[in-house]
Order: sequence, then C-alpha cells, then structure tokens
Amino acid sequence: MSEIKDKSVDVFLDELASRQATPGGGSAAAVMGAQSAALISMVCNLTIGKPKYAEVEAEMQELLLKSEELRQQLTAMIKADVDVFDKLMASYGLAKETDEEKAIRSAQIQTILKEATLVPLDCAKACAQTIALSRVAAEKGNTGVISDAGVAVMAGYGALKSAALNVYINAGSIKDRAFADEKLAELEVILSGVEVEVEEIYQIVKNKL
Amino acid sequence: MSEIKDKSVDVFLDELASRQATPGGGSAAAVMGAQSAALISMVCNLTIGKPKYAEVEAEMQELLLKSEELRQQLTAMIKADVDVFDKLMASYGLAKETDEEKAIRSAQIQTILKEATLVPLDCAKACAQTIALSRVAAEKGNTGVISDAGVAVMAGYGALKSAALNVYINAGSIKDRAFADEKLAELEVILSGVEVEVEEIYQIVKNKL
Repeated sequence: MSEIKDKSVDVFLDELASRQATPGGGSAAAVMGAQSAALISMVCNLTIGKPKYAEVEAEMQELLLKSEELRQQLTAMIKADVDVFDKLMASYGLAKETDEEKAIRSAQIQTILKEATLVPLDCAKACAQTIALSRVAAEKGNTGVISDAGVAVMAGYGALKSAALNVYINAGSIKDRAFADEKLAELEVILSGVEVEVEEIYQIVKNKL
Repeated sequence: MSEIKDKSVDVFLDELASRQATPGGGSAAAVMGAQSAALISMVCNLTIGKPKYAEVEAEMQELLLKSEELRQQLTAMIKADVDVFDKLMASYGLAKETDEEKAIRSAQIQTILKEATLVPLDCAKACAQTIALSRVAAEKGNTGVISDAGVAVMAGYGALKSAALNVYINAGSIKDRAFADEKLAELEVILSGVEVEVEEIYQIVKNKL
C-alpha cells in the first residue's frame, strides 16, 4: 500500500473522512505541521536573492535549512502515526486466553503505548519549532508574502494542539506513570504560553498587511 | 496543469514551499479547512451504525451530510485561491501606457480584488461552520475517536484565521470602501468569540480522553 504522502490530496481527504481508523487526527496534525514548515520555506524562498532583503539573506538561508528539515520530519510523521496505530491495534489483537498470553499481550500493549506517546510528542515538538521559526519569517521575510508566515503560525498551532490530544490519549493508558508523567510534563512545557506567542506572531503579520 | 487536489500530498507540500507564488497560504488554509470537515465526517462514519450510539444516529447522519458538503466546498477553494491569484497577477500585468489603458487596468484590478476578497471570506465562513459542527461531533460522537473532533476544531480554527489574513490583504487594496468595509465587518462577525468557542470545544474533547 502506498504511503499517504504519495496519495493525492483529494484521496488523503477521502481516507481521512472514511470509516477507516487511519489516517486520522494524528496524520492530519502532521500534514498541518508540514504545511506550516512549507510556508516558512516559501517565505524564505521568496526573500532570498532579492536585493531589498540582502541584509537578512544569510538569516533566511539558515531559516530555510531549518524549515526544510522540519518539513521532512513532519512529513515522515504522517506515516509514523499510521504505523504506530497499526502496531497498537495489532497488540490489542494478541491472544489473551492463558495467563502467559495475557502477560505477553499486556507487556506488548504497554511498549507500543509508549511509542504511541512519543510519536505525537515529537510532532508537538516539531510544531513548536515551526511556530518559533514563523516569527523570524514574519519579522524579517519579504513583506509581499508575509501573510504566508501568518498561515504558517496558525497551521503550526493547529498541529501542535492536535498532536497534544494524541499524547494525552496514549499517555493516559500507560501503567509506567513515571514515563507518562515525564512525557506529559514535556508537553506542558511546549504548550506553556503558546497562545500568547501565536497571537503575537499573528499580530506582527497583520500589522504588516 | 493538474489541480492541486489531484497532486500527491508530498508534491503539494513541495509546491507550497517553493518560490512559486501559488499554491500559497490561501490554498493551505483551504486544505486545513477540508481536513477539519473530513475529520468531522470520520467521527460521524465511526459513530453511525454502532448500537451504543443509536440515540444520536439521525443527528450524526445529518452532521455527516453537512460536513461532506463543507469538505467539497473547501476542497474546491484550494483551486479557487490559485485561480483568483492568477487573475489578479494577470490584471496587474495589463498594459498601462495610455490613460485609457491605465483606466482599464485599474478597473480590472479592482474587480478582481473584490473576487480575491470573497474567496477567502467564503473559506472563513465555511471554516466557522466546521468549527460549529466539530462541537456536535465532540459532544455526541463515538468517544473512541473523539480526539479527531478535537483535531477538526483546531484545523478549522487554523484555517479560519489563515483565511482572514487573505481577506485583510485584498480588502485593504479595494477603492470601493463601502464594499470592503462590509466584507471586513462580515469577517469580524465570524471571528468574534471564536477563540472562546474553539477552547470550549477543545476542552470538551480533552475531558473525554
């Protein structure tokens, strides 16, 4: 079966809407995050090489490297979300007749739940970075395409808050509370103050329109 | 040239990131909005037909019709944004040597700017509707996939705020201020209180995880 990223936007949306369990919100969050990164790259690409923006050329080159790295990571997360969901479903489907089978199944579910917590947490981390990068794009990018920096911050924010929901779900079922609490604490650090940051960046853009 | 919706997600992201002017933030907003609608449909599709949710079956059927209609509208807006941008660029490119040419060019730009204001305003309206529908999905949908209703509301919000930026840009250049002010007023009505609404719906979801 081909990867989601290789399917058309329309087919992706059809599959998202369907009664299939995947792709779901986790993949949608990764796509939004990748859109955020892509729009930062667009602002960079339309700033680099313009005499008017020669002063920020080096900074835009650096920003572009970072946004493209994040875009690659977030695009890979579209599939990572599906893969870990499938593994989780497979582990729930393991035999549970004997006590030994029950123990094996339970251990396997717990292992995959940890992975299923880390995948959206990584997505949230990457989206926090696209939000931070969108500020640079908003402050220093070509004002002719500055609205794209504003769309980048909103896409990154939507993706971050979406990924957070998937961290909550999976962390909630983990028996190793030390692990779960550590990951939830990491998420809270990422989420802390993000609304204020997003609004600030949005206003920087709006004031330049 | 094939439509964006028929290109792969990966190619869409590549083109978004590129130095091409389109697709840009307007198309990205429409894709986010379409993801919002698709995720509401997903919640409906995974609620309908389940004995546990028989009580909300009719409501979910109705919700699904609305979300699929919105998904269709928002998917069409991916292309509408590119089309109106191209028309705007073409009008800016019209001859402007003689006074007559200048007058024709200016009138044409003004006509297309109105269209370029209505396209993202329609996108914003559709996204406000996906936000409203995501509340129903969050309140009454299958709790096993309720996080997808949470992603739907965040995608709808990101798309709405993104579309708003494109309304601001184009409305700002319109000389017919009565028209522009009317459209900006319509947008403000849509945006009024949306942060509170989005946070409420997000919390409904979070509390069910």
